[in-house]
Amino acid sequence: MLTVIEDLLSKQEVAKFTQSLDKGQWIDGKHTAGSQASKVKYNQQLDDSSALATELRNVVIRKLSANALFMSSALPNKIYPPKFNRYQGGEHYGLHVDSSVMPIPNSHQMLRTDLSATLFLSEPSTYDGGELSIETQFGLQQIKLNAGSVILYPANSLHQVNPVTKGHRTASFFWVESLVRSNDQRSMLFDLDQSIQALTVELGSNDAEVKRLTGVYHNLMRSWASC
Amino acid sequence: MLTVIEDLLSKQEVAKFTQSLDKGQWIDGKHTAGSQASKVKYNQQLDDSSALATELRNVVIRKLSANALFMSSALPNKIYPPKFNRYQGGEHYGLHVDSSVMPIPNSHQMLRTDLSATLFLSEPSTYDGGELSIETQFGLQQIKLNAGSVILYPANSLHQVNPVTKGHRTASFFWVESLVRSNDQRSMLFDLDQSIQALTVELGSNDAEVKRLTGVYHNLMRSWASC
Amino acid sequence: MLTVIEDLLSKQEVAKFTQSLDKGQWIDGKHTAGSQASKVKYNQQLDDSSALATELRNVVIRKLSANALFMSSALPNKIYPPKFNRYQGGEHYGLHVDSSVMPIPNSHQMLRTDLSATLFLSEPSTYDGGELSIETQFGLQQIKLNAGSVILYPANSLHQVNPVTKGHRTASFFWVESLVRSNDQRSMLFDLDQSIQALTVELGSNDAEVKRLTGVYHNLMRSWASC
Amino acid sequence: MLTVIEDLLSKQEVAKFTQSLDKGQWIDGKHTAGSQASKVKYNQQLDDSSALATELRNVVIRKLSANALFMSSALPNKIYPPKFNRYQGGEHYGLHVDSSVMPIPNSHQMLRTDLSATLFLSEPSTYDGGELSIETQFGLQQIKLNAGSVILYPANSLHQVNPVTKGHRTASFFWVESLVRSNDQRSMLFDLDQSIQALTVELGSNDAEVKRLTGVYHNLMRSWASC
Amino acid sequence: MLTVIEDLLSKQEVAKFTQSLDKGQWIDGKHTAGSQASKVKYNQQLDDSSALATELRNVVIRKLSANALFMSSALPNKIYPPKFNRYQGGEHYGLHVDSSVMPIPNSHQMLRTDLSATLFLSEPSTYDGGELSIETQFGLQQIKLNAGSVILYPANSLHQVNPVTKGHRTASFFWVESLVRSNDQRSMLFDLDQSIQALTVELGSNDAEVKRLTGVYHNLMRSWASC
Amino acid sequence: MLTVIEDLLSKQEVAKFTQSLDKGQWIDGKHTAGSQASKVKYNQQLDDSSALATELRNVVIRKLSANALFMSSALPNKIYPPKFNRYQGGEHYGLHVDSSVMPIPNSHQMLRTDLSATLFLSEPSTYDGGELSIETQFGLQQIKLNAGSVILYPANSLHQVNPVTKGHRTASFFWVESLVRSNDQRSMLFDLDQSIQALTVELGSNDAEVKRLTGVYHNLMRSWASC
Ligand code: NI
Ligand code: NI
Ligand code: NI
Ligand code: NI
Ligand code: NI
Ligand code: NI
Repeated sequence: MLTVIEDLLSKQEVAKFTQSLDKGQWIDGKHTAGSQASKVKYNQQLDDSSALATELRNVVIRKLSANALFMSSALPNKIYPPKFNRYQGGEHYGLHVDSSVMPIPNSHQMLRTDLSATLFLSEPSTYDGGELSIETQFGLQQIKLNAGSVILYPANSLHQVNPVTKGHRTASFFWVESLVRSNDQRSMLFDLDQSIQALTVELGSNDAEVKRLTGVYHNLMRSWASC
Repeated sequence: MLTVIEDLLSKQEVAKFTQSLDKGQWIDGKHTAGSQASKVKYNQQLDDSSALATELRNVVIRKLSANALFMSSALPNKIYPPKFNRYQGGEHYGLHVDSSVMPIPNSHQMLRTDLSATLFLSEPSTYDGGELSIETQFGLQQIKLNAGSVILYPANSLHQVNPVTKGHRTASFFWVESLVRSNDQRSMLFDLDQSIQALTVELGSNDAEVKRLTGVYHNLMRSWASC
Repeated sequence: MLTVIEDLLSKQEVAKFTQSLDKGQWIDGKHTAGSQASKVKYNQQLDDSSALATELRNVVIRKLSANALFMSSALPNKIYPPKFNRYQGGEHYGLHVDSSVMPIPNSHQMLRTDLSATLFLSEPSTYDGGELSIETQFGLQQIKLNAGSVILYPANSLHQVNPVTKGHRTASFFWVESLVRSNDQRSMLFDLDQSIQALTVELGSNDAEVKRLTGVYHNLMRSWASC
Repeated sequence: MLTVIEDLLSKQEVAKFTQSLDKGQWIDGKHTAGSQASKVKYNQQLDDSSALATELRNVVIRKLSANALFMSSALPNKIYPPKFNRYQGGEHYGLHVDSSVMPIPNSHQMLRTDLSATLFLSEPSTYDGGELSIETQFGLQQIKLNAGSVILYPANSLHQVNPVTKGHRTASFFWVESLVRSNDQRSMLFDLDQSIQALTVELGSNDAEVKRLTGVYHNLMRSWASC
Repeated sequence: MLTVIEDLLSKQEVAKFTQSLDKGQWIDGKHTAGSQASKVKYNQQLDDSSALATELRNVVIRKLSANALFMSSALPNKIYPPKFNRYQGGEHYGLHVDSSVMPIPNSHQMLRTDLSATLFLSEPSTYDGGELSIETQFGLQQIKLNAGSVILYPANSLHQVNPVTKGHRTASFFWVESLVRSNDQRSMLFDLDQSIQALTVELGSNDAEVKRLTGVYHNLMRSWASC
Repeated sequence: MLTVIEDLLSKQEVAKFTQSLDKGQWIDGKHTAGSQASKVKYNQQLDDSSALATELRNVVIRKLSANALFMSSALPNKIYPPKFNRYQGGEHYGLHVDSSVMPIPNSHQMLRTDLSATLFLSEPSTYDGGELSIETQFGLQQIKLNAGSVILYPANSLHQVNPVTKGHRTASFFWVESLVRSNDQRSMLFDLDQSIQALTVELGSNDAEVKRLTGVYHNLMRSWASC
């Protein structure tokens, strides 16, 4: 399942991010890719240890944790601390699959990448190219969202970032280890949750079927979740 | 999940069964138990190869296949050809767990016993004792149904048939290999199915949530069923 | 994974099918849908018990079994006997998910629908509308293939056939129970198989890595396949 | 499997708990239920952040960790910090299924609720009603234990607390995430463990079968446990 | 787990087999290997459709079905009809992994190869070389059994038949699809079964622990078996 | 899969270890075995809380983490803090299976023992006996490595340490909880990784098949790993 979270950040918040990031320290992105990816990655990244990166990262995590669509579709167990990158002057990131297990910086934990995410921070009108391009059953699908919006996609997808040929494209990217590893299972839970919410509005939360379906939801979660 | 199917056979059908069975050929039940069970089994069984057994067996299977509650709760993949037994004069069957895999007579197939079933054929008023007694979390639970009714219970349960101290107790018994092996999964599917049926009555079969939940049901089945 | 098999039938074969089918007996399609689907299905179907249906069905199965792409991507365990339908004059089939388990006609077996398939038999230029429209992460994707080509898609997808507004659209449709139930697992096996085939061409079949990867392929299959 | 742990607390310990709790600060229980449960929950809860709650909670955890029956039947990986509640004057908690995943207070961890537990702290003779009533295959089963005793039940059960119509019912409640998620698997491990212990007494710990069964026990655990 | 079944055939039976096979029709073995294996296979095979092959095959299957060690260690669901081969004059079969899924001749069924088996039919003293050599954690292990004995080994093993440099080596080979796919699970069931049998001899079949362990055995089987 | 890591420690490092350990405080090994194992364990162990043990333990962990073969074959999630033991004068450790789940000292975490490991610290020429003897499909296999080398073996194996009849045998031992619980799955990942590395050398890291296989590797990991 591919989920678009519109306006995770408001226009004001995006403006603040942009202002700060424009003054940030950008370094060569090859440092953050695995050995195979480094051969296909050409971009710049914000220094993760800078005060700026730390501050913005925390805003993103706070916004995600408060977002109902993110919580119910991703069912997050761990979130990789968001990173920030910038493409310009033809920079791009060739076709690749993200690594499956990564150490979480400044911790002794590892994270399994079930979902990949990109938070777009530049308005699409300000740059050419730079689509997140995901290989699907229907060919390469091009994703270019408004600044402040997030795309969540299964981390087992082959994907690339097209060359940015005009302007620059700033974004935050991160991964999610979900309570529920399987994309298909998470998708069924999301459908069930959507039905329960719609029926709650329609029939009330004391309706017998709303209660029974809520029980089924929790029992499915219990049989699938690891934390 | 334990399921009672009331009146699988009507009173007339029970009467016909009784009439026929009273004239049947009954033999020592030890022949039908595994090596361990034979030590605890004292009853009589109808000769499976007799014309009578064949005829009644087919009626039971036909009735089961037409029964909505049986179909939706058991989700049968294979049904063991029903057998018939009779307890009287203190006969009983000691505490045991049914065998897990059995050859299906007159076939080259085997059947995994996910569910055990007893179809009661004697009215409870006509005999003393003879309860099907199942060990549960709440102690031994005693089951004694009206003639024509069926109890379906998870075949991993420890159970026994209490001594029949007056009259006789005639029954049919069989096992079901379900499309869905796990009792917990089958139980969630049953709950979901019950909700879909209730909501269909309430909201109509074209309701968006009825359709979405039906999709979830089939996708859960698809991820769990083997046939 | 979504697979297109181009030209399963040659143009001559399509012509023969068309000639025969134009003389066939077509009946109301509602008979072949489950209770929910019948509310959304408006089309005509060929009588499955006719000699014509039997003959064409066997041709389709023979062609499938000889097709390397079908065999390696679907890993079929059972194929539902192909059926034939026709849409015209606005006929269509509303959004639905296919049933998960179906009895195979004229057998005592059931089939789990892992994959759904449509073999297009009318040239796209001869009718308007009639796209097979599959709901994906990227919105509804429209599929309309050349006559003789097949689309295979995961049967847990929500899909519809759009109204045919000019001409008529004849097709064969069927389901596949795969040796490997999970779409993700089947997709990894297919990728591995494609690599093995490419490396065999490049390095020869006696190359040590070709042999090692072939062993991995068979051991993955062994740990995932049911038959 | 449903497990009763008799006398986790001795009568003296119960007396001390009672004395302390009678002076505790009790607040409205709706604060501790999820959005659905809050509609059905009417009781009082001890302030979790109070020194009293902290002290008693630690006693309960210490007692549980030293209890052989608790350890071998629950195989705990994480224990939710026990909470304390009180029902009186008709208070009750309607039929519900417990939430499947909960954040552990004052930590960054989550806990999957495999088992639910109630430690009874009031003697049954001192109040009317207040049974923990669990929906089972055999209808609603009523549980009311001596003060100091614990009931452990699968958290996927539908359950309620009946209205307390006389006196008051004080209890501690908590959840367990087990090393072994599945109730059926945990139950088989418990049976195997019971046999190993009985055979050790009978045949000695150097008996070849005791050793072989111990190996099977650990290898089953290894194939089922997550920590 | 690797299992040796000593003397599946008695010396007289081996003599009869030898006499018959010496008059059989032997053909080039490449016909029976998959495309990769054919590059490494040099031996002769008995014509499977001959009356001789049919007769001997049936004897082997009858003997296997009556053999307690075979039944309890392999837990067979399907047995591939045994084939017969002969190596001489330097013939050998290079290192390979057996195919994972094979069509069963003269049926519409497929078989998953969980276990591979070789029944040795020539006395080791009558030929040089010809060891079945299996790659294990401890290097290549050489197997050369007495005529009439069978080796069963996990079919995911890399193995070869060494060149026969003197005399000839005749054998029967086949595969087993087990009720229990996983080697580790089958091995735990076998250990548990061995303990139950030993304890039954020691304590009697009515011993409480013998009964409890038998229940655990059947419930493990029920949770693992497919048929 | 059984993995030998040659020269994890260099000869100089071994010499330093030996010097330090000869001055260490050794205590009776029964303290570190579970209740069953204590009956079969006769050796000496270094005091885990000593500064020496702490220092050497950290060296071992640092060396392991930097060792490519260890990382790719064990895929470690958690490593039990290495312990040190010594056998002499006939000391030995009888046949046993290691415990499945252990608390990690000085933490609140538990560790599932997927792999067992022994780092040999005495040169084989300096002592007699003391083989690590693992029960396999091919009988008891004897392991006695050079000082500085490590043996990694599946923790579900039955094993023992033979009596040391001359000199003394010092070693470090520990357990690994792997990201991938199943031995068979870990072994397939290792094979795939070996092929990818060999093909990268042969064809370059930009080769299409190297990239595709890397994607398969990460997607298999993603579907199997827990962290
Ligand atoms: Ni990426
Ligand atoms: Ni029974
Ligand atoms: Ni459809
Ligand atoms: Ni509750
Ligand atoms: Ni072979
Ligand atoms: Ni050990």
